[in-house]
Amino acid sequence: MRKEVCSMKKGTLFVISGPSGCGKGTVLKEVLKNPDLYFSVSATTRDPRPGEVDGVNYRFMTNEAFEALIEQDGFLEYAGYCDHYYGSPKQPVEEQLAMGKSVILEIEVEGAMKVRAARPDAVFVFILPPSMTELENRLRGRGTEAEEVVQKRVAQAKREIGFAEKYDYVVINDDLSAAIADVNAILCAESHKTKKNLEEIKEVLGK
Amino acid sequence: MRKEVCSMKKGTLFVISGPSGCGKGTVLKEVLKNPDLYFSVSATTRDPRPGEVDGVNYRFMTNEAFEALIEQDGFLEYAGYCDHYYGSPKQPVEEQLAMGKSVILEIEVEGAMKVRAARPDAVFVFILPPSMTELENRLRGRGTEAEEVVQKRVAQAKREIGFAEKYDYVVINDDLSAAIADVNAILCAESHKTKKNLEEIKEVLGK
Repeated sequence: MRKEVCSMKKGTLFVISGPSGCGKGTVLKEVLKNPDLYFSVSATTRDPRPGEVDGVNYRFMTNEAFEALIEQDGFLEYAGYCDHYYGSPKQPVEEQLAMGKSVILEIEVEGAMKVRAARPDAVFVFILPPSMTELENRLRGRGTEAEEVVQKRVAQAKREIGFAEKYDYVVINDDLSAAIADVNAILCAESHKTKKNLEEIKEVLGK
Repeated sequence: MRKEVCSMKKGTLFVISGPSGCGKGTVLKEVLKNPDLYFSVSATTRDPRPGEVDGVNYRFMTNEAFEALIEQDGFLEYAGYCDHYYGSPKQPVEEQLAMGKSVILEIEVEGAMKVRAARPDAVFVFILPPSMTELENRLRGRGTEAEEVVQKRVAQAKREIGFAEKYDYVVINDDLSAAIADVNAILCAESHKTKKNLEEIKEVLGK
């Protein structure tokens, strides 16, 4: 029985970004139900918040361990933010790709641009909100943030969306199930790129 | 209500090829149920066969009309074969693309390579059979062809599959519904290419 989402024999590194409030977490939660996908968990030196689980929300590391890994060129990208490091460890990503799994890296725009430079074979997807008004409503709707924080996040979102045109694909999340289908279509299509299937073409001719 | 196949606001020219027996006709019949797609009907100077309808199977043209259209640069590609012309008229394709529809051109490999040279913005998809043995079985299964004809078609298929690596995408038709889903995913993903959505990014920022 064939899966609805096409099988991805060829591992591809997908980098997904989008501003806070665009809904990328909800989209990815569904997309990651595909067992052929591996979600790369970011590393950080900040302390776990209540409820956060090591290896699920983040890989929590000491400052010393993080800096040692930097020295070993062990990150696809990393950055310092509010006195803490955040980064994408290279090894688990490479391992999964080598096993033929596709890897999803959910990172912010500056990190994505670093990966773009280092990994020209990676595929970049930007999730957009339907409008800034809707984004603002979503951010406000969380009800947990002061108005000043909301405005700061809207400004931050605008800045991030300025990077969208540097991505390979954009998906506008105006309808959740459509956005999930769109991201799945991108993952599926990329696995059918000819350059990833040269062996398969030979196999067809040989059998 | 959102369609299952994603809407394609941006018209893209898709060129689809595959050897006789790969099942591309059956795949395309399903894919073309999407109302955002326009199927480009080839023109020919050969006589209609019983049951063939002008404008559906082919646009039947006189030799004079075809040669006049060649003079006007009116074909995306054309070729002479068995004393008759076959070609893809440019005008209906351009009209549909201008209206934002995506166009499917189902043509053989040499024609596709001509379109590749003339239209670098077009997207090329090659449909493969699961194996040459299966292709041979399918060709023989039609029961209408002499063994010699079957062998000639298998040789022709091998030659055509030699062009597959010049296409952007390949889809192996080992399971019809999966192949249909794969082609739909490619069409959907291409409509999300960032270069086709620069206006949409601006719109999100402006509203």
